[in-house]
Amino acid sequence: MIPASPAPRNPAKLAIPAVADVAARFSRVRAQTLALTSGLSVEDLGAQSMPDASPGKWHLGHTTWFFEAMVLVPLGGQPAFQPAWHYLFNSYYDTLGERHPRAQRGLLTRPTLDEILAWRAQVDERILSLLLGNSLGAADAARIRRLVELGTHHEQQHQELLVTDVKHLLSLNALAPAWRETVDGLETRSASPPGWIVRNDAGPLAIGHAGNGFAFDNEGPRHMVWLAPFALADRPVSNLDYLKFIEDGGYEDPRLWLADGWAFVQSQGLRAPLYWRPTGSGTWQCFTVAGLRDLAPAEPVVHLSFFEADAYARWADARLPTEAEWESVAATRSLSGEFADSGRLHPGAVDEAVFGGHVWEWTASAYDGYPGFRPAPGAVGEYNGKFMSGQMILRGGSCATPRDHIRATYRNFFPPSARWQFSGLRLARDL
Amino acid sequence: MIPASPAPRNPAKLAIPAVADVAARFSRVRAQTLALTSGLSVEDLGAQSMPDASPGKWHLGHTTWFFEAMVLVPLGGQPAFQPAWHYLFNSYYDTLGERHPRAQRGLLTRPTLDEILAWRAQVDERILSLLLGNSLGAADAARIRRLVELGTHHEQQHQELLVTDVKHLLSLNALAPAWRETVDGLETRSASPPGWIVRNDAGPLAIGHAGNGFAFDNEGPRHMVWLAPFALADRPVSNLDYLKFIEDGGYEDPRLWLADGWAFVQSQGLRAPLYWRPTGSGTWQCFTVAGLRDLAPAEPVVHLSFFEADAYARWADARLPTEAEWESVAATRSLSGEFADSGRLHPGAVDEAVFGGHVWEWTASAYDGYPGFRPAPGAVGEYNGKFMSGQMILRGGSCATPRDHIRATYRNFFPPSARWQFSGLRLARDL
Amino acid sequence: MIPASPAPRNPAKLAIPAVADVAARFSRVRAQTLALTSGLSVEDLGAQSMPDASPGKWHLGHTTWFFEAMVLVPLGGQPAFQPAWHYLFNSYYDTLGERHPRAQRGLLTRPTLDEILAWRAQVDERILSLLLGNSLGAADAARIRRLVELGTHHEQQHQELLVTDVKHLLSLNALAPAWRETVDGLETRSASPPGWIVRNDAGPLAIGHAGNGFAFDNEGPRHMVWLAPFALADRPVSNLDYLKFIEDGGYEDPRLWLADGWAFVQSQGLRAPLYWRPTGSGTWQCFTVAGLRDLAPAEPVVHLSFFEADAYARWADARLPTEAEWESVAATRSLSGEFADSGRLHPGAVDEAVFGGHVWEWTASAYDGYPGFRPAPGAVGEYNGKFMSGQMILRGGSCATPRDHIRATYRNFFPPSARWQFSGLRLARDL
Amino acid sequence: MIPASPAPRNPAKLAIPAVADVAARFSRVRAQTLALTSGLSVEDLGAQSMPDASPGKWHLGHTTWFFEAMVLVPLGGQPAFQPAWHYLFNSYYDTLGERHPRAQRGLLTRPTLDEILAWRAQVDERILSLLLGNSLGAADAARIRRLVELGTHHEQQHQELLVTDVKHLLSLNALAPAWRETVDGLETRSASPPGWIVRNDAGPLAIGHAGNGFAFDNEGPRHMVWLAPFALADRPVSNLDYLKFIEDGGYEDPRLWLADGWAFVQSQGLRAPLYWRPTGSGTWQCFTVAGLRDLAPAEPVVHLSFFEADAYARWADARLPTEAEWESVAATRSLSGEFADSGRLHPGAVDEAVFGGHVWEWTASAYDGYPGFRPAPGAVGEYNGKFMSGQMILRGGSCATPRDHIRATYRNFFPPSARWQFSGLRLARDL
Repeated sequence: MIPASPAPRNPAKLAIPAVADVAARFSRVRAQTLALTSGLSVEDLGAQSMPDASPGKWHLGHTTWFFEAMVLVPLGGQPAFQPAWHYLFNSYYDTLGERHPRAQRGLLTRPTLDEILAWRAQVDERILSLLLGNSLGAADAARIRRLVELGTHHEQQHQELLVTDVKHLLSLNALAPAWRETVDGLETRSASPPGWIVRNDAGPLAIGHAGNGFAFDNEGPRHMVWLAPFALADRPVSNLDYLKFIEDGGYEDPRLWLADGWAFVQSQGLRAPLYWRPTGSGTWQCFTVAGLRDLAPAEPVVHLSFFEADAYARWADARLPTEAEWESVAATRSLSGEFADSGRLHPGAVDEAVFGGHVWEWTASAYDGYPGFRPAPGAVGEYNGKFMSGQMILRGGSCATPRDHIRATYRNFFPPSARWQFSGLRLARDL
Repeated sequence: MIPASPAPRNPAKLAIPAVADVAARFSRVRAQTLALTSGLSVEDLGAQSMPDASPGKWHLGHTTWFFEAMVLVPLGGQPAFQPAWHYLFNSYYDTLGERHPRAQRGLLTRPTLDEILAWRAQVDERILSLLLGNSLGAADAARIRRLVELGTHHEQQHQELLVTDVKHLLSLNALAPAWRETVDGLETRSASPPGWIVRNDAGPLAIGHAGNGFAFDNEGPRHMVWLAPFALADRPVSNLDYLKFIEDGGYEDPRLWLADGWAFVQSQGLRAPLYWRPTGSGTWQCFTVAGLRDLAPAEPVVHLSFFEADAYARWADARLPTEAEWESVAATRSLSGEFADSGRLHPGAVDEAVFGGHVWEWTASAYDGYPGFRPAPGAVGEYNGKFMSGQMILRGGSCATPRDHIRATYRNFFPPSARWQFSGLRLARDL
Repeated sequence: MIPASPAPRNPAKLAIPAVADVAARFSRVRAQTLALTSGLSVEDLGAQSMPDASPGKWHLGHTTWFFEAMVLVPLGGQPAFQPAWHYLFNSYYDTLGERHPRAQRGLLTRPTLDEILAWRAQVDERILSLLLGNSLGAADAARIRRLVELGTHHEQQHQELLVTDVKHLLSLNALAPAWRETVDGLETRSASPPGWIVRNDAGPLAIGHAGNGFAFDNEGPRHMVWLAPFALADRPVSNLDYLKFIEDGGYEDPRLWLADGWAFVQSQGLRAPLYWRPTGSGTWQCFTVAGLRDLAPAEPVVHLSFFEADAYARWADARLPTEAEWESVAATRSLSGEFADSGRLHPGAVDEAVFGGHVWEWTASAYDGYPGFRPAPGAVGEYNGKFMSGQMILRGGSCATPRDHIRATYRNFFPPSARWQFSGLRLARDL
Repeated sequence: MIPASPAPRNPAKLAIPAVADVAARFSRVRAQTLALTSGLSVEDLGAQSMPDASPGKWHLGHTTWFFEAMVLVPLGGQPAFQPAWHYLFNSYYDTLGERHPRAQRGLLTRPTLDEILAWRAQVDERILSLLLGNSLGAADAARIRRLVELGTHHEQQHQELLVTDVKHLLSLNALAPAWRETVDGLETRSASPPGWIVRNDAGPLAIGHAGNGFAFDNEGPRHMVWLAPFALADRPVSNLDYLKFIEDGGYEDPRLWLADGWAFVQSQGLRAPLYWRPTGSGTWQCFTVAGLRDLAPAEPVVHLSFFEADAYARWADARLPTEAEWESVAATRSLSGEFADSGRLHPGAVDEAVFGGHVWEWTASAYDGYPGFRPAPGAVGEYNGKFMSGQMILRGGSCATPRDHIRATYRNFFPPSARWQFSGLRLARDL
């Protein structure tokens, strides 16, 4: 007998959030986005440094479009602020129509920043009215609350991208412009070798999102994996650690690299992490959101590609953890490092044990769907599933991630050559 | 006996302009540049649509840098407003040091537009002080007057580029934004066939700049050429003329095209001039500085590559004129068409005889140095000579050219694939 | 306490093969390589159709270099036939020195084919002398036997590549040249829907190579995985199946594709598998090693990218199997389809249940190292491990795979856009 | 009154050549082509080193196709040897139908070399039969004689390309394979400074082909130009001369280069002419048709781009001659240097006055149509006219040019970046 395909399992059966919670979260997140832009000029928010990045202005527009196109127009019965703008601010939702070419987002000089801010204000007001009003049936109200909650998490992802995209843009300016006054203040002492978190008990383990709190669809279904014994370092690799790799000729030895990684190093002429600049006297400076600054040894190394993280681990006679290994440890700890909430937008020192925050940690796991994963129908289903090829999983959140956006089961993903995110690594070893 | 190389002949022995004339011209040109930016947002002036174009803001900075780097610092003994900016706003002067990569001018979000306007104001004041003060010896004063005069002509070139670069940028926005209110008002009736200006007397003729008024170095030395009899159309080719070429399959017939032109048409999928858009009902619209607008038959066809101009001429059983032919006619007429001074920034109707203005006219002549041409030593010598390969001559000025910038001997030049300038053509024939 | 990194575990503790077996296998495999070239001209064996492919002549040289560079020179103490050739025929072994650029292998007109055949003959003789002689100590003899065995499996991989590379080359010739006389004869009837192999028992399972027979390092270590219930189709997807996907607009619907896959389809203008050509009357022909031929409905669809296989599965309301699922079934069956041994070099009909052979089957699994995998030190360690990024696993072998080269645990891998291998798919479903 | 376009003037009214002359020339040229291939393997004749080059085998086929497609089929009423081959061996004649992509000529492994040689033999026989038979009317006979004469000159052009294309191919092989035994024997002593040929009489002068002997269409119409006084060096620039430019930092000083040339030098990392290789001890070797060899100081520098020739001239306080200047001198001398007839395929020493031969000499003139030039209708008209953009004129012939192929009026042309031809330069100066 031929088995029929089973009905899609909702990968995470989410509770309907309370109106007051959604509304409060919505207001907070929307305000945080604007707060991030302080210190930036109109031009800083308009330019696009590379096809993978977007202008800050575009992020402001796209996150607004999300609420208008997913909620206000189809469910709220409201007219678009400017229907023609939907073409401009759709990111990749094929089910929602044609869109402006991604690599040309920096050419969208109209609408102006002021016009987009006016749009934001109108959408904010309308979403709150819709949430707090009582014009809706129960089903629609529940659906809207879920979508608005999703929209706030979506917006938090774009907050992080806004930070990394603007940082990348400013890094290309020979003036090395500062955006925040300082990133100093958190470092204490030089990094000592990491300790190890040891997990000796092999066997089956459930990973993935559990419970009915919010999670993205790609965090489920919760499912069993089999883990062999392993150890995980108790802190990320530091700048001081990584310097030794450079000084040992790490970037010149093909035996340390994956074949794709070595080709990447050669074609790009890589010699250090993104944003490191030699001073000419044997030391390094780093470009930060506060401009150029001497390399801080106790801070985690950051702005690495997967290939660099993998090569470093091989050099250190270790390896990258799998995402299941990482999550098995995370499930027993709280994520406690530096997050975006401090406003500093730069990792702090990791000279003692720390788990989560500071920098995203590249894992050895390719991004795929968990067993039983099936995207939801419609536009929302385009959110995560269609990117499940050619990317690697990162875990843990960074100094540009809002604390209430991240979880132990959270799966971030980027192509292995991506360097402009706050990406570092933590070592693992077989036992 | 081996001949020594002769001393460089000054390609055009220019008179020293009077102080009052230079100062007045300086003030007028600088103000005209700012006037061109009216109707543009900060973002419109910051973005770069392609490597060949520059942001409006960059043009504002670069034309200011020219006066500071060529005059105020080396000859006026004055400090730079911001020395670090020289790296950003040098265009291509190798003798003046390293510079920001051309294709990344749109990423220069700092300095901001406001900072550049402040720089402009300071430089304006200092140049006028220097010109009008009496702190200089006669030789320096003469040198400065000549350089300032050159700088104003340089700035007028950038005025035209600012117009064409911003037009190109806005054309890529699906909103088809307008920058001027209208380009209407000049058209009268449908284009009739052109008349012909006939020149039957073959023989030697002198071309190139004569006299001691201002001219660019590449307009001289004046020299002899030999002309065969020819005829020149008495107006540029119109949109109506060009439509017949399209409708006759001109873009599909390789026999009408140069080999490079046919490869260009095929690789770019060309079917019409830049900025023409099919309406879906068999007619065309054009993108202008006032947004989209129906094709005006009596206007000259514009935004053609050399390849398209050449193919059209072949289809019309004619050819492009040489620059010597063009100049031999221009020497007997005044240039009388539409120039930038009207502020319209769009060609007018050419349904009667007209010579000069409206659109640049592609010629059959490759850009080279006239016999005896030698660039001046130093940075000023990098102005024209080093571009003498791979480009074709255009003559006559356009609706974006200031009237007092252009002459019968003026040589404009662009690569044969360039389409974003106001470039059209006029037919010629052998007799 | 910080755990030291454990000693590398030999991923598969291989037995030392008997001399007679190795020698016989060596002779047989070397002869099979030459037999594959029958029907090909000197030119057919010299050209390179794309950077991912290599000329047949290069395969003949490289497989010979393997034995000379890995065995005869370092262990047999013999001089190279031509030392300068090692630069030409090293593929990617960084530990063995610099090498000729991969994309220019088709430019190696010297040495000639005849010279390479002479080299092959000398190496064949020397390897057999070394194996069968008694000049070696036991340790060296064991090491050589293992390396020669590895070299024969390496050569069998290149046999398959030689077939697919030459097929690709000939496909680009408008004459559609034939290399074999026919690929007909195996098809019987039209494909009916597949049956399903159902595996209802969830739980832990060991996969990976067991025992001490030959296997590649990437097939181990054997390790535990956790499987959820699933069903696997009992035959690969057929041409007839795939035609329905095409006719249903599969190549035009972005919702069926991974984002990278959709970009690939769009940029390449894909509308059908590689080598399918529309006849102009609504039917299809396929290019085969015997030239053009009508599409055979009961044959498996072949020359698909991973992206097409994945999209088809989504359209069919199914998914690709993981490699663990595939192997769990393969462990209970023999691989019984069409292999290279028949000399036909084209898949046969799959109108009834069949497992293995015919076409490689794309899986949902990214290529990575099994838990505990560590490459061997030295050149041999560059064999598999460094390619563990950016590639997907294929299982089962194809009509170009020698039968004695393949196993249930065999892991083939290619980038997701690769189409020139004999690659198809088999459906899976969750239960 | 509007002038009608005049009837096309035949750019060179050619005499009808005598049958015996055409037949003898045809036999001689065809045999010379085959003679050039001696010393080359089947593979050497099959590979294509870059899109601008073609395989030797393709040249053998294309020159045969020319006679079959232009003469035997349309005028001789004969069937094609293999009609399908016309698609493969048409170079760029749009009027003769679709064709195989130029960059993939190296993939045409079928037909084989032997098949093409058989085709050549049949076409040779048929052309001679047609010429020497008496089956044709007078008009057809005349037309055929002219076309066959044209075909032999066309074939001589491909003889030179065969030499330069194969040389380029072999240069990419690390074995530096030799094709001829030696290129030594002609050099005598070190180069002394050139003398100068002085032309003091300014004024009008006729240039272009005169008389009714064979010439290509682009050598006419003969027409008047105006020359200013100038001097021309009496020999090409030698390797010794050019070494001084290199040692003086010529490749590092942007002021010596055209802007396009400087970009070319930078992007390609140029430091010396093509085929020069540093020995590591401060001297140079050159790759020749006889393999690697020490730089010969008295030989002319060769394998320069136009950009390098132009920069050298600027460095030497001189300039490149115009083609009219060159021709005005050539009209009074015989071309007397090294040509292909010696079979040496390498320039000889130029340590005394020599004019023509050895190396093509880059001129300052862009390739265009002479006044009144109009291509002939039909396929023959595609020969020269459509390439009149983006290329520079070279004059004089080289060591790979058959002596009876060249004339004082002969115009060769290549893009300014081309280096694989035997291209050098001769200096000129204004007087």
